[in-house]
Parts: sequence; C-alpha cells; structure tokens
Amino acid sequence: MDEDSLMLLGSCPVPFQDSTKVLLGHGSGGKLTADLIEQLFLPTFRNPYLEKLDDQAVVAVDGVRLAFTTDSYVVTPIFFPGGDIGQLAVHGTVNDLAMSGARPLYLSAAFILEEGLPLADLARIVASMRDACATAGVVLVTGDTKVVNRGSGDRIFINTSGVGRIEHTRVISADQVRAGDRVILSGTIADHGMAVMSKREGLEFETEIMSDTAPLNSLVQILGADNNGGQP
Amino acid sequence: MDEDSLMLLGSCPVPFQDSTKVLLGHGSGGKLTADLIEQLFLPTFRNPYLEKLDDQAVVAVDGVRLAFTTDSYVVTPIFFPGGDIGQLAVHGTVNDLAMSGARPLYLSAAFILEEGLPLADLARIVASMRDACATAGVVLVTGDTKVVNRGSGDRIFINTSGVGRIEHTRVISADQVRAGDRVILSGTIADHGMAVMSKREGLEFETEIMSDTAPLNSLVQILGADNNGGQP
Repeated sequence: MDEDSLMLLGSCPVPFQDSTKVLLGHGSGGKLTADLIEQLFLPTFRNPYLEKLDDQAVVAVDGVRLAFTTDSYVVTPIFFPGGDIGQLAVHGTVNDLAMSGARPLYLSAAFILEEGLPLADLARIVASMRDACATAGVVLVTGDTKVVNRGSGDRIFINTSGVGRIEHTRVISADQVRAGDRVILSGTIADHGMAVMSKREGLEFETEIMSDTAPLNSLVQILGADNNGGQP
Repeated sequence: MDEDSLMLLGSCPVPFQDSTKVLLGHGSGGKLTADLIEQLFLPTFRNPYLEKLDDQAVVAVDGVRLAFTTDSYVVTPIFFPGGDIGQLAVHGTVNDLAMSGARPLYLSAAFILEEGLPLADLARIVASMRDACATAGVVLVTGDTKVVNRGSGDRIFINTSGVGRIEHTRVISADQVRAGDRVILSGTIADHGMAVMSKREGLEFETEIMSDTAPLNSLVQILGADNNGGQP
C-alpha cells in the first residue's frame, strides 16, 4: 500500500472502517456508492466537473459545450422481459446525456465478453444496440472488445460512453434542484428493476412485468423547448 | 435467436463456423478480433466512422473536430513491474487519441469491481490514474462504478473513454498507410507484454523487465508540429 492509500484509509470513517473490501453495495448507487465517491474518487481526482456529482460532465471545446458520460452495464440476466443488456446500454447513456439537456450524438461501445458466450447471443445484443441507436438518433462511432477467461466475467459486460451537444445556455444539474421543485415521472416506477429481478429470481406475477427501458432524449428536447420560450 | 443473428451466422464462414462461442482469441486484437469486427460489428452498425477501423473516431460538432475513443482494460495481474491497470487505462486512451493527432483533453473512467477487492488496491489504482492524468495533461471528468458478485469478475476491470481536440487539418488514419512508409518505434518492443506475462506466469529473467507504459501525446504533438511547417 502506498502513502496515499494509507492516508486515505486513515481519514475515512465509512465504509473503510466497516470493511476493507469492496462490497456489492459499493456499486448499487446508494449510500456505499456515495461514500466511495466522496471518500475516494472525489478527493483523488478533485475537479469542478466531478464535484457536480452529475451523471455526465459538461465540458467546453473551442466554445462548443459538450456533455460527456460513461456507464458500464452488468445486468443479469442479459435478456429480460422488455429488453436486453445491449438496448439498456444505449438507452442509459443516451438518457444520461439528455439529463443535461444535451442532444446525444455519438456513442462508444466496449464489450467485455466471457469466453464461451454464444456468438448468437452477442449478435442478438448487437442488433438490439443498433436498433436502439437508430431510435435515439445516435451513431455508434468507436468500440472495443475484450475477452476474459471463463469464470473471470459474467457472459457480457458493456460499457457505453457518449458525447452530446448542449444547444441551450441553461445550467441543468443536480445541484440546481431545490426543495419544492416538481418531479416529472416518465412512467410508472420500478418496472425495469422488477422485470429484471422477476426473471433473475424466477418470480411469477399474474401479468408479466416488462422493462420500460427507453430513450428519453426526444422527450427532454420538448421539455427544453417549452421552458425556453424559444431562446437558444 | 432473432432473424438478424440467423442471417449473420449464415453468412460468416470464420469464426462462426469453427465455433459458435466466444473464444479468448476474439479479444486478442489478432485474426479472430478482425473477423468479429468485419463479420459482426461492421455489418451491424455500418457507418463511415467504424469503417476506418481506427482506434478512435474523428467526429465534428459545430465545426470543431473531436477524437473520441474507448478501451476496456482487463489485464492480469493488476499490478506489474513498471505499472498497474489504472495507469495503463489512462495511457492507453490518451495514446489512442494522440494517434489521430488529437490533443487529449477529457477522460471518463468506469470501474467494474469484483466483490471482495481490497479497497486499498482500488485506492492505489485510482491514485495511479490521477498521476497518469496529470502527466498526460488530461482531466478525468466523469465516471461510473459497478460491483459484480465474487466469481463474476476478476478483481477490477477499467474502461476509459476519451475526447480530444484535433488541432490540425490533416487526415491521420490507418487507411492512409502505404507500403514503404517508415515506422517510428517509441521504444524497444514487447516490454509491456513481457512484464505482464513474467509476473503472471512467475517467470524470472536475469534482469526484471519493466512495462514501458507511458503517455505519448506530447511526443506526437512534436511530430505534428515538425511535419506541419507551422500551419494549424
């Protein structure tokens, strides 16, 4: 262990005292994930982009405002009622870009395949990604494929990163949220999680619950236009 | 299996006839990887960006030319003589951007952690990424963390994606290479591969072979300036 990590471990009450190992909860998006971000990632990389704690960064290149985001998808099962890991990977990154008010433009896809994955499954997932890109109006421009030994992965993990153009001058960010703001739900909640879980655990309900995975960028564009009174 | 994948499998002599499953070679960067790209990814996503078969895409947003790239790092062992997976993940993506003549600007980092990874190892890797970013002059602006069950991963996988600005008007691409072109080596070859393999397999040599992982963007910038006669 180097000095930095010793210092880091010394200064972190939770979760580093509770556990010296990574727990499933560190990736759940809840308390442990927040601890990991606040106690490890933020202090190490400290910069104004990360400090916003948004799902995407807004960066400027030659005066053009871009949104840039990344997400890995490790969902099990990889095919579930209403969707699959490929479609989800496109929708998730498109939506993360849209949440800054950006128009999603370009996506990357990086596959970590476990040795032994049926090529037919990969083909089905990739076709699903193509359709999701077409629906969302984004182009998949670059990619990467790695294969790990059997038992060192879980069939397929997909990372998608994305770049979008911000076509407005507002600052849309989680740190702008105020008590009393209205929350807009784009559908009923928990459909996706329940669809995945019911398939994973073999749960049966009277009706099959379908994932509602979908690209929300066109919805968000309309929202932007409404709020903006026609201003760019 | 859907119609698309059936069609695809029907039209692919190699490797789909030899094997209906993903093999380690599909991720090695050699013949099987090329087959996978040419027989699956290209026909599915067919667009001019992917057709170049470069390690990065060059895209334009409002007249600004950007390079965009992604790579996942699954190296074992995660610490090796001369470096670690974190440093490698920064250098690799910085270099993929530089190979289009771009100035690397912004990086994303997405971690897939296996339950049980010592947090001290993660802290050491993250500190190493911070140092590598500082040396290369890039800012890590966005990230993601997922945790998979013990046995569903291999300690840590890291995806880095990157965005750079292309500050010249040349077209630098693998498809521009011609017979008779000179190849510039930035150092002795195979150091990195041998360093990793010697550690993985417990091989001992008279001298320890160190990985030569390094950011090459400043070298490439000089090259661009020399060739360019001062033109933008």
